[in-house]
Amino acid sequence: MSLACFLEAGGQHMAGWRHPLANERASLDFPFLAEMAQLCERGVMDAMFLADSLAPWVGVPEVMSRTARGEHFEPTTMMAALSSVTERIGLVATATTTYNHPYHVARKFASLDHISRGRIGWNLVTSLVPAESRSFGTDPFPSRDHRYDRAEEFIGVVKSLWDSYSDEAMLRDRATGRYYDPGELHLTEHSGKHFDVRGPLNISRPPQGHPVIFQAGNSPRGRDFASRHGEVLFTAQSDLGEAQEYYRDIKERAVACGRDPDHVRIWRGFAPLVAPTQAEADAMMEELNGLLHEDVMWDLVRGPLAEVDFSGCSLDDPLPELADTEDSRQDLLHGMGGLNRPTIRDIVLQVAGSGMVVGSPARIADELQEWFEGDAVDGFLLAFPFLPSNLRLFVDEVVPELQRRGLYRSEYPGRTLRDNLGLPRPKEVWR
Amino acid sequence: MSLACFLEAGGQHMAGWRHPLANERASLDFPFLAEMAQLCERGVMDAMFLADSLAPWVGVPEVMSRTARGEHFEPTTMMAALSSVTERIGLVATATTTYNHPYHVARKFASLDHISRGRIGWNLVTSLVPAESRSFGTDPFPSRDHRYDRAEEFIGVVKSLWDSYSDEAMLRDRATGRYYDPGELHLTEHSGKHFDVRGPLNISRPPQGHPVIFQAGNSPRGRDFASRHGEVLFTAQSDLGEAQEYYRDIKERAVACGRDPDHVRIWRGFAPLVAPTQAEADAMMEELNGLLHEDVMWDLVRGPLAEVDFSGCSLDDPLPELADTEDSRQDLLHGMGGLNRPTIRDIVLQVAGSGMVVGSPARIADELQEWFEGDAVDGFLLAFPFLPSNLRLFVDEVVPELQRRGLYRSEYPGRTLRDNLGLPRPKEVWR
Repeated sequence: MSLACFLEAGGQHMAGWRHPLANERASLDFPFLAEMAQLCERGVMDAMFLADSLAPWVGVPEVMSRTARGEHFEPTTMMAALSSVTERIGLVATATTTYNHPYHVARKFASLDHISRGRIGWNLVTSLVPAESRSFGTDPFPSRDHRYDRAEEFIGVVKSLWDSYSDEAMLRDRATGRYYDPGELHLTEHSGKHFDVRGPLNISRPPQGHPVIFQAGNSPRGRDFASRHGEVLFTAQSDLGEAQEYYRDIKERAVACGRDPDHVRIWRGFAPLVAPTQAEADAMMEELNGLLHEDVMWDLVRGPLAEVDFSGCSLDDPLPELADTEDSRQDLLHGMGGLNRPTIRDIVLQVAGSGMVVGSPARIADELQEWFEGDAVDGFLLAFPFLPSNLRLFVDEVVPELQRRGLYRSEYPGRTLRDNLGLPRPKEVWR
Repeated sequence: MSLACFLEAGGQHMAGWRHPLANERASLDFPFLAEMAQLCERGVMDAMFLADSLAPWVGVPEVMSRTARGEHFEPTTMMAALSSVTERIGLVATATTTYNHPYHVARKFASLDHISRGRIGWNLVTSLVPAESRSFGTDPFPSRDHRYDRAEEFIGVVKSLWDSYSDEAMLRDRATGRYYDPGELHLTEHSGKHFDVRGPLNISRPPQGHPVIFQAGNSPRGRDFASRHGEVLFTAQSDLGEAQEYYRDIKERAVACGRDPDHVRIWRGFAPLVAPTQAEADAMMEELNGLLHEDVMWDLVRGPLAEVDFSGCSLDDPLPELADTEDSRQDLLHGMGGLNRPTIRDIVLQVAGSGMVVGSPARIADELQEWFEGDAVDGFLLAFPFLPSNLRLFVDEVVPELQRRGLYRSEYPGRTLRDNLGLPRPKEVWR
């Protein structure tokens, strides 16, 4: 079982930053994040992860200003700085192919891989948030097909640039004066639809050959791309059956591309709220929900139910009748379980706690075990409702419980992220 | 007097990496660079600096492969990683306005400034090397005017984005649930010739307000830009009189822009080869020159003398007659001092040792003192012929000598790079 930690410092729960046990300055408190990284490493986790967006979470400033979503570190600089204070844990940074250039991305991730001595992963995203287009003057937001076409071309150029120097190229031989073997230099000569790029890259091949490619994608086009290029895929199914279907589908697609299905790992997003007992965990969840400001609550319900007219409603009114044709609404109501006539507040709390599993260490371990043994996932990307206490308790209580059950290792098997994940080192693309 | 160190790990001398006291793997040896950074900090230096180019030093692979110029870390990731292993020294990273987008640059440098708690400088360059255009498919290389126009627009957008949140915006008030004051959020709405950018940036205002702006520029257009926007300017005059002229000119231009001339600092590139005695220093210089491969030597002389036909020549032949109208040739010959009829090898060694000052700690200190007291510079950017031994000797011998002469401080006066340089903290651009 793989475990990775989402370093979303503001916390997964919208009111997480307000909790008395949270560090309300976590988003830009580097020494604090360094401590969290070391804690993850003590928990022998595979990686830390930082998501990204090239625009703040966009909403009405009145609402945004009540959340911690308006600021965070830029992932490549944060992971570089964290690499100096950790030894073994992987560092996964997000970068979009939609608003970057392959030369920059190839270079930064190669540099990161050298700095960290082989611990870097690139979470390749194609951007989801139309607001990012406004940061880059590419309004309107490009279509999914356009974004995936660009991503296809992008990753090909990046891999070619990473392989500018072969693994054997660097001699650094003082006696002969030969720094590298010119016969082992391979020039990218790419002229495509989106990019014209001539190599070489100005840095030698990354220690891992290529940084590990992380990806997420659930649409047919997304699954296609992910199963061809991704080495670790993030997913977020809340239903075990759906997750099993996704797992089978991706592994089959990988095989169809000629890949070993074991070289495509699937990690599910998982948001544990852990406390010493179930009762304490439930109380903490209630406490968090009680810290949600009314403006934020309205915003949470207006997200998935944008067309509903809530004017004149209070949060304790029953949810207005919904047309039952719309998928997202159905999902929402599905999640409400047996509630007969939910109030607007019920829906808000459902959205606020979306994906969260609330319980004692044993309960959390049970849930992880069920999914892992059910052939639904290979690992979990943990998103804590707030930091640091939840993470600390997870490392101190849940990890040892998983180890007792024989589900989790107690030390790092290797030195690089690839070694730790058991993923093969790619050959040079021109070989 | 300010001192900063050029972390060009391959060394300033083309054969530096081959010297027995050099670390031939320095370019990508992060633990080694971390040690160098700590050494600079022990020397109470203002900053470390990493130059950059978005293409390798380009030449025939046969020549390139005999130098350490083909690989180096990407500056923002390297400076982020170095910030975790240092406490007080400034970190200056280069980024070009020609092949980047202002949203990315604003974000990365804001992130770096938060990670390092206010120790970041941005060396704003407009790119010099036409090879970079081939990495980005913008061949032919854009004209100087185009690049400076873009840089003007670029820096305006970056400053506006840095000021998205005012200094007072972040409240992070758990009691009221207000993370920031929405009245203190200022949206960039830029629509210009090169960029359309809508804010806000997704990170709060940098600890320094704005990272310190470093610049170099010697053409009339370059001086104009630098004196309006630069806070520390790099220069490279080898003649004291010319340096004094540049110094006066820049300070006058700054005053003409309404700036305090003391807020525009001029640091000269300075390449010390220091050894315990003058004789040992001269011997080391000779040793370095002896390590230059013949291919590299021919390349060094063909650079400034591209039109000369050297076919059939040996290095010990006299330099062919030159037309005396060309400036760069004249400079070259001027640098030869009294040599009546120099050989090609004499010229090569002149180019290889360009800007280097070879001597004992006292001799190096004398030279620094002469320039500093001659109203020619405010500080020096040190480029060592190779690392680590030259830097170590400089910190252990030259710095104490400067301190004894009352020219150099013995501890950091402040916490941020701005504090240490005595530069004012900029107000928000919209105030």
